[in-house]
Amino acid sequence: MQIPDRSAVQAAHARIADDVRRTPLWRLPGAALGLSVQEVWLKLEHLQVSGSFKARGMFNRMRSQPIPAAGVIIASGGNAGIAVACAAQSLGVPCEVYLPEVSTPAKRARLAALGATVVVHGAAYPEALAACLERQAHTGALLMHAYDQFEVVAGAGTLAAEMEQEAGLPDRILVSVGGGGLIAGIAAWCESRTRVEAVEPELAPTLHAARAAGHPVDVSVGGVAADSLGARRIGELAWAISQSQVAASHVVSDDAIKRAQQRLWSQMRLAVEPAAALPLAALVEGVVRPEAHERVALIVCGANVDPASLT
Amino acid sequence: MQIPDRSAVQAAHARIADDVRRTPLWRLPGAALGLSVQEVWLKLEHLQVSGSFKARGMFNRMRSQPIPAAGVIIASGGNAGIAVACAAQSLGVPCEVYLPEVSTPAKRARLAALGATVVVHGAAYPEALAACLERQAHTGALLMHAYDQFEVVAGAGTLAAEMEQEAGLPDRILVSVGGGGLIAGIAAWCESRTRVEAVEPELAPTLHAARAAGHPVDVSVGGVAADSLGARRIGELAWAISQSQVAASHVVSDDAIKRAQQRLWSQMRLAVEPAAALPLAALVEGVVRPEAHERVALIVCGANVDPASLT
Repeated sequence: MQIPDRSAVQAAHARIADDVRRTPLWRLPGAALGLSVQEVWLKLEHLQVSGSFKARGMFNRMRSQPIPAAGVIIASGGNAGIAVACAAQSLGVPCEVYLPEVSTPAKRARLAALGATVVVHGAAYPEALAACLERQAHTGALLMHAYDQFEVVAGAGTLAAEMEQEAGLPDRILVSVGGGGLIAGIAAWCESRTRVEAVEPELAPTLHAARAAGHPVDVSVGGVAADSLGARRIGELAWAISQSQVAASHVVSDDAIKRAQQRLWSQMRLAVEPAAALPLAALVEGVVRPEAHERVALIVCGANVDPASLT
Repeated sequence: MQIPDRSAVQAAHARIADDVRRTPLWRLPGAALGLSVQEVWLKLEHLQVSGSFKARGMFNRMRSQPIPAAGVIIASGGNAGIAVACAAQSLGVPCEVYLPEVSTPAKRARLAALGATVVVHGAAYPEALAACLERQAHTGALLMHAYDQFEVVAGAGTLAAEMEQEAGLPDRILVSVGGGGLIAGIAAWCESRTRVEAVEPELAPTLHAARAAGHPVDVSVGGVAADSLGARRIGELAWAISQSQVAASHVVSDDAIKRAQQRLWSQMRLAVEPAAALPLAALVEGVVRPEAHERVALIVCGANVDPASLT
């Protein structure tokens, strides 16, 4: 298994520069958010193409690999599927997205509107994935994974490279974790130059459970952020990188996540999905307690939210 | 009548630095928005304290003037009222806001939640204003105006000073106009160093009508942006400044405003009020046609929107 490192992130950064957006880095005094740290940096990655950081990894994989005539294929109804569809549309590549019958009509419509061929198959996600893999074996399309592929992790890491280019590294970076692709990329870029810490929902703690067990394990998955952070198990790449380069792993409750999401809207006018609110939740609840002099970066990772749910 | 100039904006910038947020300036290739200009700069001022640029002017006035024991008073149910209430709360100053009976319970509740004393008086805005002025004469509270006061205009101009400090001046700045406080402040800062242009709703064209008549005139006011841009007449200060320092005045239709607002959400994940979408509407509709080499700044001025209305 090849593990992405800083040079892989650097290469990805150059490769996708014209495909993705440089998202704003909003540096505020901690007091602006009622927090007793010197600075809070909000990396507004929810403003990325496709509405989440996933576009970085998907463009990177599609720019790195030869694209077969059959195009690309993925089983995902969430941010990864949307990002693959966006990238495929942008690059003029065919795209198939497999979804289970439990997926909502709204998701299918959104993917179809992005030009993807949407295939609904099986009662739940494992059946959709099996059908996707069978189809891929038949067509030879480039298989895309939501988090556990070299180029996907390296692409996610470009977020940290971009932040460092603009402002240097903060003292600490808090990152939401599901399958771990984002934190793996960020940690691969930062190495041991700053503290990279994971925040997970209590109801979907893949990295936390892996750390407790000493190896990746399946967890049951639920809660308000399951739509984005609903991986059953931490990715192999994320596990490999996180053991040496992720300083801590924290969990927050669903109530804390919802409160932080609400606060980002009511006080900051940032419309984000629950998964994007975990880093703020960890600070507000005191789950993470930085020193007063610290500059703490919170990765605001996605905006695939029904805005009506914010009121 | 004393007219704010660049030094007044400079002084305001220092005065309110700890009260307001430095809002992100998001610089994108024009192509990222489907526009054939070199760069589009989105000044994300809808992320300002109170949800709009108005906080800049209100803090500046309250930091410039002695505050009587009776505090501050204003007749406004819109962004100006919210900004005064926010600033008063932040500075620990009593605040009275006068609203007419037509104001919605949601507005009254929001102002009350910010600690303002809400007084509902009269059928419509002129009656509420009359009652407010009568009360002010009685209590001696500091009267705040939504746009036509020296400190309010100078405070609004700090947005441009902040942008220039970060990135220099663009080739053109497009600004929504209601009473004209924002464009007056920006023009006072920029002088003739770049093109500052006004964009107004067809259904509330205060500056456009004043230019046609050669002097400020009352206009009828309506349309989707009336809540923020619903002044009946351009302010005296804005009129004075705009004659020499605003290069052009444009109008856009309600449909174009709604489409641009929708686009800012669906493509950029910016949740903004209709008034904030006028500059983009003017570009998208070809009402403003910059040269291909230009960097054009769009002031995204407010986010006092029910997010449910974005879907």
